[in-house]
Amino acid sequence: MPTGVMRFVSDNAASACPEVLAAVTAANAPDRGYDGDALSQALDAAFSELFETPVVALWVTTGTAANSLALSALCPPYGGILCHEDAHVENDEAGAPGFFTHGAKLIAVAGSGAKLSCNGVEERMARIVKDVHRVQPAAISITNATELGCVYTQQETAALGELARSRGLGFHLDGARFANAVARLGCHPAELSWRAGVDLMSFGCIKNGGMTAEALICFRRDLADELRIRRKRSGHLSSKGRFQAAQLLALIEDDRWLRNARAANEGAERIAAAAAGRLAYPVEANELFVRLSAREAAELRAQGFQFIDWGEGLARFVVSWDQGGDEIAALRSALAKLDDAQENGSEVLR
Amino acid sequence: MPTGVMRFVSDNAASACPEVLAAVTAANAPDRGYDGDALSQALDAAFSELFETPVVALWVTTGTAANSLALSALCPPYGGILCHEDAHVENDEAGAPGFFTHGAKLIAVAGSGAKLSCNGVEERMARIVKDVHRVQPAAISITNATELGCVYTQQETAALGELARSRGLGFHLDGARFANAVARLGCHPAELSWRAGVDLMSFGCIKNGGMTAEALICFRRDLADELRIRRKRSGHLSSKGRFQAAQLLALIEDDRWLRNARAANEGAERIAAAAAGRLAYPVEANELFVRLSAREAAELRAQGFQFIDWGEGLARFVVSWDQGGDEIAALRSALAKLDDAQENGSEVLR
Amino acid sequence: MPTGVMRFVSDNAASACPEVLAAVTAANAPDRGYDGDALSQALDAAFSELFETPVVALWVTTGTAANSLALSALCPPYGGILCHEDAHVENDEAGAPGFFTHGAKLIAVAGSGAKLSCNGVEERMARIVKDVHRVQPAAISITNATELGCVYTQQETAALGELARSRGLGFHLDGARFANAVARLGCHPAELSWRAGVDLMSFGCIKNGGMTAEALICFRRDLADELRIRRKRSGHLSSKGRFQAAQLLALIEDDRWLRNARAANEGAERIAAAAAGRLAYPVEANELFVRLSAREAAELRAQGFQFIDWGEGLARFVVSWDQGGDEIAALRSALAKLDDAQENGSEVLR
Amino acid sequence: MPTGVMRFVSDNAASACPEVLAAVTAANAPDRGYDGDALSQALDAAFSELFETPVVALWVTTGTAANSLALSALCPPYGGILCHEDAHVENDEAGAPGFFTHGAKLIAVAGSGAKLSCNGVEERMARIVKDVHRVQPAAISITNATELGCVYTQQETAALGELARSRGLGFHLDGARFANAVARLGCHPAELSWRAGVDLMSFGCIKNGGMTAEALICFRRDLADELRIRRKRSGHLSSKGRFQAAQLLALIEDDRWLRNARAANEGAERIAAAAAGRLAYPVEANELFVRLSAREAAELRAQGFQFIDWGEGLARFVVSWDQGGDEIAALRSALAKLDDAQENGSEVLR
Repeated sequence: MPTGVMRFVSDNAASACPEVLAAVTAANAPDRGYDGDALSQALDAAFSELFETPVVALWVTTGTAANSLALSALCPPYGGILCHEDAHVENDEAGAPGFFTHGAKLIAVAGSGAKLSCNGVEERMARIVKDVHRVQPAAISITNATELGCVYTQQETAALGELARSRGLGFHLDGARFANAVARLGCHPAELSWRAGVDLMSFGCIKNGGMTAEALICFRRDLADELRIRRKRSGHLSSKGRFQAAQLLALIEDDRWLRNARAANEGAERIAAAAAGRLAYPVEANELFVRLSAREAAELRAQGFQFIDWGEGLARFVVSWDQGGDEIAALRSALAKLDDAQENGSEVLR
Repeated sequence: MPTGVMRFVSDNAASACPEVLAAVTAANAPDRGYDGDALSQALDAAFSELFETPVVALWVTTGTAANSLALSALCPPYGGILCHEDAHVENDEAGAPGFFTHGAKLIAVAGSGAKLSCNGVEERMARIVKDVHRVQPAAISITNATELGCVYTQQETAALGELARSRGLGFHLDGARFANAVARLGCHPAELSWRAGVDLMSFGCIKNGGMTAEALICFRRDLADELRIRRKRSGHLSSKGRFQAAQLLALIEDDRWLRNARAANEGAERIAAAAAGRLAYPVEANELFVRLSAREAAELRAQGFQFIDWGEGLARFVVSWDQGGDEIAALRSALAKLDDAQENGSEVLR
Repeated sequence: MPTGVMRFVSDNAASACPEVLAAVTAANAPDRGYDGDALSQALDAAFSELFETPVVALWVTTGTAANSLALSALCPPYGGILCHEDAHVENDEAGAPGFFTHGAKLIAVAGSGAKLSCNGVEERMARIVKDVHRVQPAAISITNATELGCVYTQQETAALGELARSRGLGFHLDGARFANAVARLGCHPAELSWRAGVDLMSFGCIKNGGMTAEALICFRRDLADELRIRRKRSGHLSSKGRFQAAQLLALIEDDRWLRNARAANEGAERIAAAAAGRLAYPVEANELFVRLSAREAAELRAQGFQFIDWGEGLARFVVSWDQGGDEIAALRSALAKLDDAQENGSEVLR
Repeated sequence: MPTGVMRFVSDNAASACPEVLAAVTAANAPDRGYDGDALSQALDAAFSELFETPVVALWVTTGTAANSLALSALCPPYGGILCHEDAHVENDEAGAPGFFTHGAKLIAVAGSGAKLSCNGVEERMARIVKDVHRVQPAAISITNATELGCVYTQQETAALGELARSRGLGFHLDGARFANAVARLGCHPAELSWRAGVDLMSFGCIKNGGMTAEALICFRRDLADELRIRRKRSGHLSSKGRFQAAQLLALIEDDRWLRNARAANEGAERIAAAAAGRLAYPVEANELFVRLSAREAAELRAQGFQFIDWGEGLARFVVSWDQGGDEIAALRSALAKLDDAQENGSEVLR
């Protein structure tokens, strides 16, 4: 990444945290292949403790794999998955859910902040005639924190979980930024997952200080055997799994995962305070969606800020766990200057 | 891995080599996500130089993924893939080729040492009636070095490549132990790959000193765009790809890959010399298939040797790049003692 | 079907026309299996003459099969298919396109009368970022006449065909009611198909007087070999294909297909004239979408009319080729009476 | 089919029997679409009576569809199906099982007469290591009568059924020539199906006097809902299902199916008597595998006999339900003449 650059483009651009790298280095000794090594074997216990319930925890190599594997176990090839129209599984995984499920249909539902509401889901389901000609829903999938930086509360998650249960649907949680949601709400991770009815979830590691490992957490342990096979079959059973397990164990030890997420959230919050009038969505995690004119966007880029254009007049800024105060302060100040310019009429011709 | 243990169970049990770990550590700085980082962008050039031809090189997370992605680009869902009946793709990937190709048929062919011969392939093809009822072959897949530790020479590979070309079939090479084959033959890697007609190959890294990365090498660069999509769609586009690229670049720098493979091959050769009368297949790479009675196998295990039973009366020993002379010497000596015991009649009651 | 019943529920409820039944009866003699018989072998020529261009014509057993097979040849598993949000392929085929294409994504587009417009398609495409994370469109699929009884003109079809061509997309036509569209426009079938850029189409037979056969017409004959294999592989290669071919040949002989469609269209037109104030869409084929209150719908049903509720306050009536003037007249009169009642204030409390 | 031709090439070349054609003709009146019509609704009861147990009976359009649908309900995408290496599902369905199951692996087992034995299955299973790397069997599939004209007895079927049950495997029966097996054994159809542990079976109609319909019989009625969806999704839910149901009902009425099968079996038996020294397999149904030199085969073809070369020096003759005594007698006589010629030394130069 060129020097002078201040990256807010993605938390995938961040470094791995020192504890993770140290754990990987420490893992570099001979051990059994695949998931037979000591570290991989320790995963279930570590995550069971974290979630305060017995789980099976499987490392995989990407969030896409974690999500798609989960969906493939919750939805038959001929079923449907209710998800938000802005969901990562719908838009950003190159059709991976269709690949892993063998053609199940993603049924997109609208909702503010990329959040599903019970009403929204029920209305969508009501439009699906119950016959053999229509794809029938088999699962609900949510992302927390969402793709638009918003957070489902414990109550909102539990309400969707109850809806899923009552309709016989599986309940999947894309937790690429689960840490940011838990950090935001200050709740126990169980409250946003199995206590709220979640069956399977991906537990994000890479965006939050990891390197190459994500976790697929099975609250429904009856699905674990099938998922182990599907993991192998999709090429996600790493042959030196200890390097994957090490990252996950290091990240959840001593709540490192929450500290990393808090750092990112706080950075976002501080920027949000400086961009209050420009925010398209509430800033509840580590992402900001900021209204910018084309000229403003160009100006920020000229100053070295990296971010993504998010459709017409909107820009996405993502704060990473490893971004020190300087970059945050610089962006705050740059955004404030834009506002001054605006007030001073420099944008009147816009 | 318990102390006192001498592992010959798999090269997946080996450590990563220091250069690889150092490269991963060095890669831990912010950079673009996915394969937009500088290291990932350097892969094509590095492998093009290695192979002396322009290639596209894609990191993936497992050999299974590399092989299955390659097959999915060479064979339509309704086609067949000619492979050896002992091939990894046939037996050890949980049906991954069926998953990635959407149901293509592996057509198993016999052959000594897990090697396909042109005759064997042609005979098998002759039995396939050319009509719409039979699955028609679309590709040939070989493994070099093979699953039984044997090596295809340049001539053998080129003959199969010519057969593939003349029949309009794709040609895939499973190169999980490609380094061992090249090291054995002392030839240029091009001679065992594109010059011999190979279209796509997996280039093994993990067994040979890597951690979590394998490479899919596209000699047919026209397939690269499709493969990039398939990689993403199957969840193999790592979001911090620099950690994957770093491993591959470190391994091929200064011929580290060949030095590692040579070390493993030489260890195997030395053991072979001590087990000459017991070898089921020629030892041409880093694997030995040794005839052992149940009692002998138990005896070796009691001494701390780890290996895999390979069907009736046969055991597989794999030597890794990082196994020092002590373990090799110990196994040599243990095997020699078995022979002495045998000669002294201690096995007469068997 | 109970006596006294007047069916407007679906053209699938209609009988087969006498010529079709006679042809099936005449086909009942020994002949080669699958598509080796004389009738199946005559299909290409018959449809080539009909369309005035060399085509390959394959019988299949359902419209769903014809559509899905076509899409599987035009769109790779990792591609997308632009279609109307009310399209049969999107809503009424139980996810068959996902099954046959191995998980390709249907990308729904809005548009009045279930018709795609070039603008609508272009706007939708503009929202698809061109990268590896998004499913990229590979084909456009339209239905003519549409699911809402509207018709694409030659110009509209050609404009979409040109758009498809310019973007490198395949162009598929669901022609379950193609006959009704051609009959409506009075044009040559070529003008609504290959001359307008259509690559593959399903040619509806069953709704229009057939029994168990539909045709998949390949204007792109280079795809025919692949489609023959896909037909077999999906279980649609009937083993006594002569019974399938006979229906298709009988239907297109002497323009029977157009006469049947004209009869159905004219019935619909006559009903439309009696329901003018209640029509949700222009009546351009054999379907009417009529605004009815719940009480009105119940009243009509009480009189023996069968039809389908089409969401809130709307009812679908389909006229079949074999519905004589009596049923048509009865429905006209019943609809007129509803209007009288409405005018007389009997609905004021609604 | 050219005149003067005597077809023994396939029972797919036979005509439909008069009762079937009459039933189809009688079915040509308006009725509900898909399987809502009176005839389709009568199928379950009719087959439940035939099998003396409650079943769900679904018409489909081909035996390939019936078999593949059944396998897709008995075997997950990541499972294996044990079948004979000469099985139709393995060799003659263009990979349809792979398509419908989404990539499940057919695991071929040897056995005389294309019959699986319990020993053969158990030996094959013993070679499958029980880990995540190997595809694990989920189902057994047999064909009765087999592809080589042999018949599983009630005891043999029940033994395989018990083996399947004890190993937790589904049990599928390809009954394309089930009628011939029942006719041969003179047993009740239940004894060769559910009483022997069969879960799902295809019930052949087309080869035995039908036109375009086969039946998928669900003894495991808990799988019926899923299979109805899979039938639709694979394009096998005919929109005028009454024409399909009519054929099946007509065929099983008054044991017409058994009479047709008996006629075919008896023809085969009579020919077998004339070819005793040349038979490669016992003739237990309506197929004969006759050893013929190339010259003999040519001679028979010159006389108008049609049959299929079945590998080196073998020819397959199939007798259909509708083949009168003349063709049978002609073939008997022709075969006898070959024998005379052979005895007289005319073949000494062979």
